[in-house]
Amino acid sequence: MSKTMPSVSPLAPKAGFPVLPPIAGVEFASGAAGVRYAGRYDVMLARLQPGTTVAGAFTRSATRAAPVLDCEEKLGGPASEGAAILVNSGNANAFTGRHGTEAVQAITSAVAAATGIPANRVFTSSTGVIGEPLPHDRIVAKLPDLAESLRADGIADAAKAIMTTDTFPKGSVASVQIRGKTVTIAGIAKGSGMVAPDLATMLVYVFTDAKIGFDDLQALVSRHTARTFNCITVDSDTSTSDTLLVCATGASGADAAGDEGFSDALFTVMQDLAHQVVRDGEGATKFVAVHVSGAADEADAHKVGMAIANSPLVKTAIAGEDPNWGRIVMAVGKSGAQADRDKLSIRFGDILVAENGWVSASYSEAAGAAHMKGEEIDISVDLGIGTGTATIWTCDLTKRYIEINADYRS
Amino acid sequence: MSKTMPSVSPLAPKAGFPVLPPIAGVEFASGAAGVRYAGRYDVMLARLQPGTTVAGAFTRSATRAAPVLDCEEKLGGPASEGAAILVNSGNANAFTGRHGTEAVQAITSAVAAATGIPANRVFTSSTGVIGEPLPHDRIVAKLPDLAESLRADGIADAAKAIMTTDTFPKGSVASVQIRGKTVTIAGIAKGSGMVAPDLATMLVYVFTDAKIGFDDLQALVSRHTARTFNCITVDSDTSTSDTLLVCATGASGADAAGDEGFSDALFTVMQDLAHQVVRDGEGATKFVAVHVSGAADEADAHKVGMAIANSPLVKTAIAGEDPNWGRIVMAVGKSGAQADRDKLSIRFGDILVAENGWVSASYSEAAGAAHMKGEEIDISVDLGIGTGTATIWTCDLTKRYIEINADYRS
Repeated sequence: MSKTMPSVSPLAPKAGFPVLPPIAGVEFASGAAGVRYAGRYDVMLARLQPGTTVAGAFTRSATRAAPVLDCEEKLGGPASEGAAILVNSGNANAFTGRHGTEAVQAITSAVAAATGIPANRVFTSSTGVIGEPLPHDRIVAKLPDLAESLRADGIADAAKAIMTTDTFPKGSVASVQIRGKTVTIAGIAKGSGMVAPDLATMLVYVFTDAKIGFDDLQALVSRHTARTFNCITVDSDTSTSDTLLVCATGASGADAAGDEGFSDALFTVMQDLAHQVVRDGEGATKFVAVHVSGAADEADAHKVGMAIANSPLVKTAIAGEDPNWGRIVMAVGKSGAQADRDKLSIRFGDILVAENGWVSASYSEAAGAAHMKGEEIDISVDLGIGTGTATIWTCDLTKRYIEINADYRS
Repeated sequence: MSKTMPSVSPLAPKAGFPVLPPIAGVEFASGAAGVRYAGRYDVMLARLQPGTTVAGAFTRSATRAAPVLDCEEKLGGPASEGAAILVNSGNANAFTGRHGTEAVQAITSAVAAATGIPANRVFTSSTGVIGEPLPHDRIVAKLPDLAESLRADGIADAAKAIMTTDTFPKGSVASVQIRGKTVTIAGIAKGSGMVAPDLATMLVYVFTDAKIGFDDLQALVSRHTARTFNCITVDSDTSTSDTLLVCATGASGADAAGDEGFSDALFTVMQDLAHQVVRDGEGATKFVAVHVSGAADEADAHKVGMAIANSPLVKTAIAGEDPNWGRIVMAVGKSGAQADRDKLSIRFGDILVAENGWVSASYSEAAGAAHMKGEEIDISVDLGIGTGTATIWTCDLTKRYIEINADYRS
């Protein structure tokens, strides 16, 4: 989206984009509609067979975008009608007033006409610049082409079509046996900046051939979101467009309601995608896990983890490979969570850094510095008060983040 | 504090450090105790005559430093005994366990011995690296020298001795007539990074020869702090050591209790010092005022202002001189305050940018870009809901901030 388009993040999965098998009951198409730039893949369409349940989670931003408001209304609609998903990059259709709502209506009607799915089962997302009118006519004009090119193995191209400042497409897959039947879960995501989701993150689409009703699926999605997408942050800024949709076609015939293996597999895919978003954090050179334990409750643990993961001083220290644990103490202090200086302990990886209100007798700066040289940084904070735990994932804050965002629109 | 010691901030007051007249009843001394670096001025002492009331405000961090805890206990003590203030830079004496408390005791005892002020009226502050033991013996050894060199016109040197990553010393002065008597208020401050005060900011010392009791002075200080130091942010990170002390010697004989002119003059000095801290924000190239109006209440207005002022995406856009008002919409949305997309309006200076849920018909990108080229950026957001207002001051986020903080301790 910018003239300083970054090369691939050093934290991208070494194995590249995973092989995502077709999910029975789902077809994909993608193409270049010229939303913002000519010739760039910027639109994807998914068609889901009748019987597909769609659960989801969305940003809680007070200024959320028109497509988000539209999706929220449609969740829980008739699975018997099937469903479709249309996503464009290049323009967020956010803070675009009445024009934004009209654009969503124009697109959902056109998707309905092209796919035979009723408009009240067409979910849309838009990602890109905020505040500019979405040229929906370009997307509408592309729809007949897209509908004709729908195919079961098109998910990898779809993952590319939804990218903005992303440096690599994000995908994840898991499969699980349910009473002798194989169920597959495949998901794609985009996200790199403006990532501090309040309910879901950026754009995430997960597909499975499991059979599971809306209420059961929504309950799983909400529970897992709290421990995955709601536990990542790149820059503390929450998007107006965060959208997660999980679609279950039922085509495997395997009943997944109440199945723990399915729940675990879905969690794994969601967590993997959440991690990949962090690994593509704008300017990131380090992947950081912040483990909090011993908090008064889960909410306090989350607060402390987020205070550390969002602290510019902690994140710049990590960028500089400086084991500056004093800044972690600072972040705990400002978090608003219940904390007692003298009960706090801090570790880098397995290295005990501080305890009993001061630096540990066994700690050496050399050991801390060695941990910081790695690409994967583990920070553990035990508050020593209660049983609340949380893990937050983030990345470092580098000059590259400033470069990317000081001239995003130019 | 770092090998990349910055030159003077481009936002420093053009007139330089103001002429601060002596305040009757206050003497200053400063010197080089070698707390962290040899030969650098790093310690200041102030002695205040009997009858001086001392009010204050401190960080609410849960991990606040030993000197802060000590000061909190001593506020409201016997004015008849006078008071002393000892400040060192180079080491924050924060998260230093029992050693930290012992260091404060050693220093306050030594100040008492050298100045004749009882230890329970000796206030100390420490600023610098967190988590390293304060070499208090070096400060204690310097105290006889300091006590001997106390003089009424030493405040400018004191302002320099408390600097860490600051690029210029900060001072402010105001005077006011109270029933024919002249009262003078002079203050100094330090602060550049880790600035997002929760009650006071960094280190601020204000002196006046007004006569005013502790309760009246503390009430003024608390009220004005809410609209000055609590309304600035450089990087959203709250220090463990934030300390504001306001000392009234009474030497003018002018009774300032309930005097509006005095209250206004004190506010002016506090606001001026708060602005100077922002103007010395690490890496800052723009001074930004965020005016919020039309919020449901004052608390919501403050939330929205802080969400904008702390957003890395808003701050990097300003650094890049990009009038990216979509990011302001984003920040309003994530703030947690009550907001209605379609009632929101946004201005850059006098330029109406957005209203009624979309970009204004009269807005031109060229006009927005021209405002962003300036050194002083004014962002106004009207939520169109209620009567709550707030103004928050901040700076932009540049590569220089990353440079300064990625190798602060090296």
